[in-house]
Amino acid sequence: MELMFLGTGSGIPSKSRNVSALALTLLQEENSIWLFDCGEATQHQILHTSIKPRKINKIFITHLHGDHIFGLPGFLSSRSFQGGDDELTIYGPPGIKKYVETSLKVSGTHLTYPLSFVEFTEGVIVEMDTFTVSAKKLEHGITSYGFRIAEKDKPGPLLVDKLQEQGIAPGPIYQQIKEKEVVTTNDGKTIRREHYLGPAKKGRILTILGDTRNPAQFQDFAKESDILVHEATFDHSQVALARQYFHSTTLQAAELARDSQTKKLLLTHISSRYQKEESQKLLHEARTIFPDTKLAHDFYSVTIDSN
Amino acid sequence: MELMFLGTGSGIPSKSRNVSALALTLLQEENSIWLFDCGEATQHQILHTSIKPRKINKIFITHLHGDHIFGLPGFLSSRSFQGGDDELTIYGPPGIKKYVETSLKVSGTHLTYPLSFVEFTEGVIVEMDTFTVSAKKLEHGITSYGFRIAEKDKPGPLLVDKLQEQGIAPGPIYQQIKEKEVVTTNDGKTIRREHYLGPAKKGRILTILGDTRNPAQFQDFAKESDILVHEATFDHSQVALARQYFHSTTLQAAELARDSQTKKLLLTHISSRYQKEESQKLLHEARTIFPDTKLAHDFYSVTIDSN
Repeated sequence: MELMFLGTGSGIPSKSRNVSALALTLLQEENSIWLFDCGEATQHQILHTSIKPRKINKIFITHLHGDHIFGLPGFLSSRSFQGGDDELTIYGPPGIKKYVETSLKVSGTHLTYPLSFVEFTEGVIVEMDTFTVSAKKLEHGITSYGFRIAEKDKPGPLLVDKLQEQGIAPGPIYQQIKEKEVVTTNDGKTIRREHYLGPAKKGRILTILGDTRNPAQFQDFAKESDILVHEATFDHSQVALARQYFHSTTLQAAELARDSQTKKLLLTHISSRYQKEESQKLLHEARTIFPDTKLAHDFYSVTIDSN
Repeated sequence: MELMFLGTGSGIPSKSRNVSALALTLLQEENSIWLFDCGEATQHQILHTSIKPRKINKIFITHLHGDHIFGLPGFLSSRSFQGGDDELTIYGPPGIKKYVETSLKVSGTHLTYPLSFVEFTEGVIVEMDTFTVSAKKLEHGITSYGFRIAEKDKPGPLLVDKLQEQGIAPGPIYQQIKEKEVVTTNDGKTIRREHYLGPAKKGRILTILGDTRNPAQFQDFAKESDILVHEATFDHSQVALARQYFHSTTLQAAELARDSQTKKLLLTHISSRYQKEESQKLLHEARTIFPDTKLAHDFYSVTIDSN
């Protein structure tokens, strides 16, 4: 599970930061890659990575502002050009389907793969054996969402020593115990699985919020995340401006990380007013509240190990 | 008058060539810049030039394929973000208005400047004091156009020596002779301007063709161009493939340049199958027919001096 930032700027691209896009590589878990937002030139950024467009089979859109969606038609078209034939699903706020379909239709683009849309409002939007993805409405100029990607917990290992102490010898019965809550042995013993499993392996939790102001209200939604990806469009001296433009400051993001018991905070969506040295100020500010903070840059990636 | 290529690849962007866009700088002539096509990430390319987006006040679209238009919404939006307030007009085939307006509407983009559209079919599409722009339908998978940008001829200089030989002394009458076809002097002489002007200064002609096959048929349209910009998606060994995909080869482009008495041919829209050394083959092929050929690369620019 690896997260790579493909664009970390806000509003318009600059020489150092492209507009928003984030790739979550789940090759081991799902043999696929999920994209979160797809600003203009996301496909260009991908050219500089090892990401294969055909592996991307889900795209989640936080909101419909241009710097988060204008790369979609080109990405979809090139994925087709490069011979992608696996289905791709776009999850986004209502309107995303019309935008993409109009772009493809006007441009005479015929995709080589099935494309489907899920226009969601709130709640669980993906439910798989391995992951649940939930969406939460944020507070922005237009409808904007956050996503919580929760890996399902995995059952702990079978406590073989304990079973043997009870006189249960290894054999097919071990598999039965793993699979069923209650098993009766040939000699009439009742085995409750819960007594013979080690602690469950907790699934990883990743929370990715779109553009928002007042993030303190999303404490429950981000609760106990391994990673929280949060915008920090402004430094904290610009808190009034942030409010006016429906954005967050460094400290607001850091407070949410702290109050939600997040493990690691990754700041992104940095205004182009902060150039190289200045952007370090954003990082230092956030760390006064939440030390395990990183300031993302384009192509910054982080591996999220199993718990 | 300077022409700068912002994207010279075909279909999809590569690390070395972006998708189509071309800037014609007319700062001296019109204090403005015109763009021809606007593939995805054209605004990103502009970041690496001295072009100011607010100076771009006309955008001409050859055809609606994604690699020629998917950069429009982002460019328009960023031009607004950067405080452009001068009107901008987009000239394109029918459908361009719907595409742009849907993109701006869905993304909640409000431009700070007036945006207008001219959806043309064929013929003269711009008539100004300085330039005429005509559009010609080409032969492509979807409706595709070429543009002929013809600068108006400028009257030659007043032949002062000849006037003085006729006993017409310098004075306000010289200005009258410049401005009117026939002037009568105080002593009753009839002066016909045509006899007292040096040769007219011929306006420059620039022909920019969109994607097309069978370009030989556009000989009249490209006639006596100072510059012909032409696609060369394929080398000549792929002539059948070029026909199938409605594209041209190097030799077809060069033949058109030769047969239309063009002065200089600029090849663009190069397939990504031709990497660095291989693309030189395209150039050499074209030069066997038309020696004054250049193979454009991203950021290649050429100045077109007055005649």
